[in-house]
Amino acid sequence: MKWKTPKTAQTLADALKATLHGDPERWLSGIQTLEKAGPEFLSFCTNKQYRPQLEQTQAGLVIISPEELPFCRRDALVVDHPRLALVQMAEWLKAEVKSEPGIHPTAICHESAVIAATATVGPYCVLGPGTVLEDEVVLYPQVVLGRDCRVGRASVLRSRVTCYDQVQIGERVLIHSGVVIGSDGFGFANDEQGQWIKMPHFGGVVIADKVEIGANTTIDAGFIEPTTIGRGVIIDNLVQIAHNVLIGEGTAIAAAVAIAGSTKIGKGCLIGGGARIAGHLDIADGAMITATSAVNRSLHQAGVYSSGFPARPNKQWRRNVARFQYLDQMAKRLARVEKNLNMESES
Amino acid sequence: MKWKTPKTAQTLADALKATLHGDPERWLSGIQTLEKAGPEFLSFCTNKQYRPQLEQTQAGLVIISPEELPFCRRDALVVDHPRLALVQMAEWLKAEVKSEPGIHPTAICHESAVIAATATVGPYCVLGPGTVLEDEVVLYPQVVLGRDCRVGRASVLRSRVTCYDQVQIGERVLIHSGVVIGSDGFGFANDEQGQWIKMPHFGGVVIADKVEIGANTTIDAGFIEPTTIGRGVIIDNLVQIAHNVLIGEGTAIAAAVAIAGSTKIGKGCLIGGGARIAGHLDIADGAMITATSAVNRSLHQAGVYSSGFPARPNKQWRRNVARFQYLDQMAKRLARVEKNLNMESES
Amino acid sequence: MKWKTPKTAQTLADALKATLHGDPERWLSGIQTLEKAGPEFLSFCTNKQYRPQLEQTQAGLVIISPEELPFCRRDALVVDHPRLALVQMAEWLKAEVKSEPGIHPTAICHESAVIAATATVGPYCVLGPGTVLEDEVVLYPQVVLGRDCRVGRASVLRSRVTCYDQVQIGERVLIHSGVVIGSDGFGFANDEQGQWIKMPHFGGVVIADKVEIGANTTIDAGFIEPTTIGRGVIIDNLVQIAHNVLIGEGTAIAAAVAIAGSTKIGKGCLIGGGARIAGHLDIADGAMITATSAVNRSLHQAGVYSSGFPARPNKQWRRNVARFQYLDQMAKRLARVEKNLNMESES
Repeated sequence: MKWKTPKTAQTLADALKATLHGDPERWLSGIQTLEKAGPEFLSFCTNKQYRPQLEQTQAGLVIISPEELPFCRRDALVVDHPRLALVQMAEWLKAEVKSEPGIHPTAICHESAVIAATATVGPYCVLGPGTVLEDEVVLYPQVVLGRDCRVGRASVLRSRVTCYDQVQIGERVLIHSGVVIGSDGFGFANDEQGQWIKMPHFGGVVIADKVEIGANTTIDAGFIEPTTIGRGVIIDNLVQIAHNVLIGEGTAIAAAVAIAGSTKIGKGCLIGGGARIAGHLDIADGAMITATSAVNRSLHQAGVYSSGFPARPNKQWRRNVARFQYLDQMAKRLARVEKNLNMESES
Repeated sequence: MKWKTPKTAQTLADALKATLHGDPERWLSGIQTLEKAGPEFLSFCTNKQYRPQLEQTQAGLVIISPEELPFCRRDALVVDHPRLALVQMAEWLKAEVKSEPGIHPTAICHESAVIAATATVGPYCVLGPGTVLEDEVVLYPQVVLGRDCRVGRASVLRSRVTCYDQVQIGERVLIHSGVVIGSDGFGFANDEQGQWIKMPHFGGVVIADKVEIGANTTIDAGFIEPTTIGRGVIIDNLVQIAHNVLIGEGTAIAAAVAIAGSTKIGKGCLIGGGARIAGHLDIADGAMITATSAVNRSLHQAGVYSSGFPARPNKQWRRNVARFQYLDQMAKRLARVEKNLNMESES
Repeated sequence: MKWKTPKTAQTLADALKATLHGDPERWLSGIQTLEKAGPEFLSFCTNKQYRPQLEQTQAGLVIISPEELPFCRRDALVVDHPRLALVQMAEWLKAEVKSEPGIHPTAICHESAVIAATATVGPYCVLGPGTVLEDEVVLYPQVVLGRDCRVGRASVLRSRVTCYDQVQIGERVLIHSGVVIGSDGFGFANDEQGQWIKMPHFGGVVIADKVEIGANTTIDAGFIEPTTIGRGVIIDNLVQIAHNVLIGEGTAIAAAVAIAGSTKIGKGCLIGGGARIAGHLDIADGAMITATSAVNRSLHQAGVYSSGFPARPNKQWRRNVARFQYLDQMAKRLARVEKNLNMESES
């Protein structure tokens, strides 16, 4: 990746508070991997497993930890945590492309919306009555916010995020494109003719500070109380979070997970990609649910839970699946054998 | 939730055709749960399991059924079905925030589009040639409708709904944000060089009356005949419905379900969250497919079908999965044991 | 489906390079299935299994292969490959509804964006600095492209496609509505307080020529190197492709698949609907992963891989699942029985 403007090694060292070994006047024009970087590129080595690439790299400058210095034959920026230095650099580069705050003339904001002077509202955004944007909020193009929403300080909503009514978003939240928040929960009753009667959902959604929500994820409004996403939760793409779900602080949810209505997920949980969690459950703090697992009862203590099967060659798989349909019979036959042998069955 | 304007107990009683026990002049400013409501709030008790909360509530007024009256120490609105009273109230409150019909000046409607005088077209909507909106249709901001679409009376399309060409939507349909309808079916043939050749999809989509479709769901166009969603079907968020699928009346489909091409789902089916249904199948009326099940052959009669495994502690799970890879061998060994004992195998 | 304008049998024969049997002056007004077509419709028979319908059809004209000619009682267009003739016809009809190139006055294009004179930019599109549209590109309404994107010749982005920064799209690519490309990868580190620190993703996305991507699919940006979709890959709706995934040429990915970060999928693979592929894996060229399978280790050779279970009547299913929780014990008991009988265990 090339930067908008090249930087000197000294500028980078100052920005990252790194110790520079080499030429402070060297110009770098962007960042690349150890293998691909040429002399005009900055690179980085985050782990000693990349030491062979470090020894071979043609990069002009490399971010490394002190232990890697003996293996680096190019100029080096030495820092304690190379990964965190990359994070810092990303923050610092963001400032480069930051647009001026202000409301784009094509944005349509209801007269009762309250927008901080330092907030940015992009082209074709639409803001409903009573909606509030705090300081330094950034709305990318085409964001739609309904009635009585609030977006906290320094939160960023990427293009096409849509919030229905009464969605409360905390500070420093990042929501990716295509996310829908506050849509009606999927709660229906059957009437006397067997037709679906839709239950209203008044509860809105509350999203705490420092949450990140991935592209095209959906979060439904609660019935009377809000659906709630705790502080520091991170959610990947295409995740479904149903009405009245509560997600505890710091929990991480990978892509394509679906969580059904009124389930409460604890703090610090890890939910692997494609997992499915049924409704009205209680998942303990610190539970780790591995990818593709299906959870249909509450998990009352921390620990690792699984139900996914790994793919196998189809022929072998099909033979075993065919036998599985008779597993109950097999268990009974085995017990009968044991009895015949006067052996005690263990289960 | 607070209402736009407070209401008196008498106004609420009249709107819900309820019997009022208490002060007709009491002002209520919104609705809350029994536990959270203070004296300025309306609350509700939908089930006798909430009787303890009913006895303790500080709500100013409570919607209850006649049986709960002895347990209610606050003013009460007595109705036969408290849940249905909530539904009625939601309908009645919607009128409060209803916008005036009309076409927003930023909407771009092709000159051949036909828009009823009582329809509402929100900001930045784009309507293609030949598209028709019937009476009382509401398009929220940024809806895009292609060529020759039709939206029936009183249907509502939330922000960012996108329909391609020839999408026919019935009356009183509700489609949530981010839904895409009528995109090309995923039908490809291989040419002689092994490259994918895309089959055209001319068939469009037909959605009957009173359907509800959840956020970011996708419904592809049919090949020559339309993909069809029957009357009163309810579909949750992030559901995939492929080309030429037919969904029968009143079927309910929970979140994250995927249904492959040309499958026909019967009437009154219930499809649990995350279920997968293969293509070219026939699912009988009244079939219930539990959450996370995978259906790969037709289901010819009503009943409950399953294939999901519940998550277990990982250590136990892994041991059993490892054994599963040898289940076919186990079955053969068991048969050999039975033969050795002159016992007859049962399967 | 009716066409915008009727066509004569001769016009159709010329367009499809077909041999016409029947009246060259016959007017056809659209295309229909064999069963539904009346005399003013064109129909088609792609397979001898439809011979009974072919013999009964009332269509005015039918596209058939030479072998079906004896069974066709209506006028016929004889071609070698009826399916390919439908593809050709679709291409030819597209020209009918093609809009004039140009930039809609409501599109907001950064002054440094470069847009070919033959490109089309629809209403309410927003293009960032440095973004390039090559010849004959078509952007439908409300497409948002960030900074330094490039869209290659004759590619089409349907309404509401969103690309973040540095997304490179090849030629003749088709991207459906709601797709998000280049959103931040889901890569986080834990800081010393156990809070998530987000890793930056500089790498963008590269999409080669002739790719098709289905509605509401998401493709994240890579870390330093780009996420890469190979030439001729076809991807269905609601698919998740994480950061730094590489997809080889000609691979087909059905709906609702999720592929985790840094996994490399080979060329010519087939990935069935709802499959889940873990991160950092290597999937060989030509691997076929059946629908709903979960892959958690690399697949080093071509072949068919599976892990899905087909749904069964719930009662039977639950009995077998209950036994599965004791499968490891069953295996040990079986071994004990064999030992008791002095039989050799085979696994």
